[in-house]
This record gives sequence, C-alpha cells and structure tokens, in this order.
Amino acid sequence: MSKKIIGIDLGGTSVKLAILAQTGEILEKWSIKTNILDEGSHIVPDIIASIQQRFESHNLTKEDFLGIGMGSPGVIDTEAGTVIGAYNLNWKTLQEVKKQFETAIGLPFFIDNDANVAALGEQWVGAGQNNPDVVFMTLGTGVGGGVVAAGNLIHGFGGAGGELGHMPVDFEDAFACTCGKKGCLETVASATGIVNLARRYADQYAGDASLKKMVDDGQDVTAKDVFDLAKEGDELALIVYKNFSRYLGIACANIASILNPAYIVIGGGVSAAGDFLLSGVQKVFEENSFPQIRQTTKLSLATLGNDAGVIGAASLVLQ
Amino acid sequence: MSKKIIGIDLGGTSVKLAILAQTGEILEKWSIKTNILDEGSHIVPDIIASIQQRFESHNLTKEDFLGIGMGSPGVIDTEAGTVIGAYNLNWKTLQEVKKQFETAIGLPFFIDNDANVAALGEQWVGAGQNNPDVVFMTLGTGVGGGVVAAGNLIHGFGGAGGELGHMPVDFEDAFACTCGKKGCLETVASATGIVNLARRYADQYAGDASLKKMVDDGQDVTAKDVFDLAKEGDELALIVYKNFSRYLGIACANIASILNPAYIVIGGGVSAAGDFLLSGVQKVFEENSFPQIRQTTKLSLATLGNDAGVIGAASLVLQ
Repeated sequence: MSKKIIGIDLGGTSVKLAILAQTGEILEKWSIKTNILDEGSHIVPDIIASIQQRFESHNLTKEDFLGIGMGSPGVIDTEAGTVIGAYNLNWKTLQEVKKQFETAIGLPFFIDNDANVAALGEQWVGAGQNNPDVVFMTLGTGVGGGVVAAGNLIHGFGGAGGELGHMPVDFEDAFACTCGKKGCLETVASATGIVNLARRYADQYAGDASLKKMVDDGQDVTAKDVFDLAKEGDELALIVYKNFSRYLGIACANIASILNPAYIVIGGGVSAAGDFLLSGVQKVFEENSFPQIRQTTKLSLATLGNDAGVIGAASLVLQ
Repeated sequence: MSKKIIGIDLGGTSVKLAILAQTGEILEKWSIKTNILDEGSHIVPDIIASIQQRFESHNLTKEDFLGIGMGSPGVIDTEAGTVIGAYNLNWKTLQEVKKQFETAIGLPFFIDNDANVAALGEQWVGAGQNNPDVVFMTLGTGVGGGVVAAGNLIHGFGGAGGELGHMPVDFEDAFACTCGKKGCLETVASATGIVNLARRYADQYAGDASLKKMVDDGQDVTAKDVFDLAKEGDELALIVYKNFSRYLGIACANIASILNPAYIVIGGGVSAAGDFLLSGVQKVFEENSFPQIRQTTKLSLATLGNDAGVIGAASLVLQ
C-alpha cells in the first residue's frame, strides 16, 4: 500500500489536520483548538500529541507516511522550517517548528505560508486541475494569494511573492491599507474593502436604494449584504458590485499579462457570492486582456473550501 | 577545455551570432544580414552556412560545443523547436528551425521567443546578477518582457507569459493598442507611447514650453526629445515624464506584488534615458509598494544592451 501524508493547516482559532493519499484525496480529517496562551508555546506540542494519539488509535506508525506538510501564518523560512511574527498565534519570537516535529515524530517535515499552501491545494486537486501555471487569490478579511508558475510555488526574493492584496489598483480617492500605502487591491476587494466601497458610493449616491438606507442608518453592512442586494437589483449595491468587479478584473488582467496562468482561482469568504461575483470580474478581465490571454487564462471559483490548506500542505511533501 | 555554446539572436534586419563560454562570457561575435526574401526561406540556411564557415576558419568542430541556442520573433513552440507568425521575417508558415539546425550541424538546438531570451540574458549575466527571480521589461517601439521566477522562464499556459506591454494601466482617455484593446502599458511607456502622452498633455497644456511648440508645429517628436527636454526642465516634457513614470511605476509595483523579484530590469531603446528615467519610475514604484517589497525588489537598468539576446540564447543550452 502506498504511503500516506499528513497535512496540517494551522490557524488562529483551530488547527485542521488530515491524512491524505498521494493523490491528494483526504482519507480522514479532524481538528483541534489552537491554544495561543503562553506565547503560543502549546501549539506545536498539542499538534504533535494529536498526531501521536491518532497513530495509536488507528494502529499507524511513521512507516505508513511519507512526511508531514504544514501551512502557517507568519513569516516562514521554508529551508530552516521556522516561523516568526505570526501574531494571531502569539508567536513573536522564532519558532523552530520543523525541528520540533522531526524530533518528536521522525518524519520529514515541510512548511510554508498559509496562503501559499492554499494556492498549492487549489492548484493541485482544486480548480487549478494540476496545471503548472495557476494563481490563487483569496478574498477574505484581507486579500491574499499564491502563485504557482512553471510548477513552482513563487516565493520571490524577499518571500513576498503572491502578495496580491497589495497590488495598486485604486487611484481615485484611495483608501488607506494596513500595509501603510493607499489603493491596494485589499482596500476594495476584501470583505472590508467591499464595505469601503459601499460607503464611498453611498456618499455619492442620491437615490433611495436599500443599501443606501443601511449605510446611512449606520447598520453593520457586510460584503454578503452588498452581493445579496446587488443580485436583487439594488441600484447602489450594483454600483458597488460594478466597481468591485472593475478593480478585481483589472488586477486579474495584470496578473494574466505577466504570467498567463491557465487559471486564476478566486477563493475566500467573499467568493461565496459565486458565479454572480465571477461573471462581473470576468467581463472586466476580458475587456482588459489581449486575445491570446483571454483565450488561455480562465477565471474560476475555488472548489476546495476549507480543505485547500491541508491538501496544499500535504503537497509540500511531494514537491 | 570546457565546451562552448553558440548563441543566435534572430532579428528582422540582422542576425547576431556569438560563441560563448559556459560562464556567459562572449568569446567572439559577428553578425549577418537577415534575408527575408522568398518567405524567409534563406534565413536558416544562411545562419547555418555562417556557423559552418566559422567552424572551418577557426578550426572548430561540433565537439567543441555543448549546443546552440536561439532567440526568434514570432510564436515559438519550444518543445518542437518551430516558429510561426514571425511577420518581420516573412515567416508566415510553420518553420522547422530546430530540425534544420540539428540535421545540418548535429548539435542540440534550443529556441525561445526573443524577449524571453533577452530576459534570460539580463537575468544571467546582466543586471539580474543570476538571481532566480528577475523580471525584464524592454521599452522599444513596443513594450515586451520576460519573467524568470524560481529559476524558470515563465511561458504560461498559452505561451503569453511576460507580455508586460499589455498590462492595463491607463484608464483615462486611453489610447488604442495594436492588440485591439485600450490602455495597455505599451500605449504609454514605449517610444510610441511617450509620443502619445506628449500629444495628450500638449492638448491640455496652455504654456509656452518647447515641447508644446514642437507638437503644435507638427514636428516629429521622439521619446528621446521628450526625455532630453524634461532633463532641461521643459514644463510640458516634465508633465509627460511624470505621467510616463506613473504608469511604468504602477506596472512595476503590480509585478513586484505578484512576484517579488530581486530585480525588475528595464531595457530597450527608451531606457537610454538612463538614471533620469529610472529615478522617476523608482519614486512611483516605492509609493505604491508595501515595505517588504520596497526593501527587496530593486529596479535596475539593463546592462547588456544588444548582447542580451545572444547571451540569453546561449543560456537556453544550459537550462
């Protein structure tokens, strides 16, 4: 029987774990709580204990596995297998993650940035269909991403490859970004960004759309509200949708001009708006891409959901 | 003695040839005229004859060489070693270039797109200093480019990777591009693009700058004129320079957010404007890049000039 892989997706509230076949198929999965107390010093021991427990209860040994792959927030040194500056884990100092895993479990251990790992998952068995050229973009609270080009995950010289959220796309009355500059894709295409746009266009809008009333009433407007109202034909929500599509479509056209990937895969919470979201972005993308690109680069919705992380993490073992 | 490489840079008016060491050093170089008569059917035989002649006159045999690399215009099938649609060579039908070379000379033959090959040259021994992550942008009549990421030349799914000239950057009163769409980088950052901008801003400008007079007089304005006048402080030329820098700086910031290359190398005829050009672009690039990118991606001028092609072509043999 061919050996299996362990995939770990480390997040600020939970750790997702899975045992996968070498095809990327999840054979079983479970999760544990992330305990960030005491500077996050329990996190790695907790994960190791959970794996060892699973080995015992399922009569598994390390001989059944090829290795362990993990996606983590923070700044990762993939060679050294260390993490630093993962603030949602309380990891402020350098964490020797690889060393701890390899000492305790005795399997080869690989680690990369969580957005990169999700990109690898979607590229491998998700919407990317294992094509060697796939860009993944995740629209959540922020905008993250990962680039796979000619079969390699692109880290870049300073490790910031795939930081798609900071592409400059808005040059109007641009919103400030957490990164310190203005007009980043994240300020107009994340969940927060869509709310930014709702406020901007509500200010300029004089009609009586429902979204206008919500904003003016000081209600908590979410990205989901905006998409739901736009689907229903709300005039202001459609203005927001159109501008969101414009920014994201231009960003995709830029990515495609540079890399001509087979797929630009859009995931994350905001992508729950589904085909409605995709069709708006697709239109702008096509208008701004020259024929050869338009015919070969396809925009797609992510298909793996929360499993992208453990699957991509597992793929690190096979690279 | 270690084997040498032959590098060929095929252009519409001349073919540049060189014998190189495996370090990328040019040992000798020469060129022949490109004879595009009879549907370009003399081109490959002429190059082969020139190489054979050189072998004879210098007492060389194929045993002295590792292989031959070539950069060509047109659409290249790098696997098959064929070229199609190279209109400046009169190559309208499929050309079996690799087959012709390998049959006649008996050395392994590799071919890629001319912009990609120039990118490889600059990446290897030029401004890219052999870093595995380098993007090359050539500002000439048009804007072309090539992307090297994680050590690989990025062709993308449809072979249009590195088509930097078609990044959408201008959303004002955008100029039409030869590709059929509007607002491409090429329409504002190539030699022709700079003239486009001179006309646009001359229309809006009411002062008495020299550039304004030249445009209004119907004189032939070149990109060089614009940069020369801008250096001298001509008011309109400075407006053009500032906007050129804005478009190119934004394009570079987009590239860097996606790939975080060690270098974005700017070459081509327009880059003769040198440090003056670079400083304007650098300013916009920094304003639009977040700290981690700003600190690790460097903009540089190309250093190999016309040699980039033969050097990059030679590097194909070593890939």
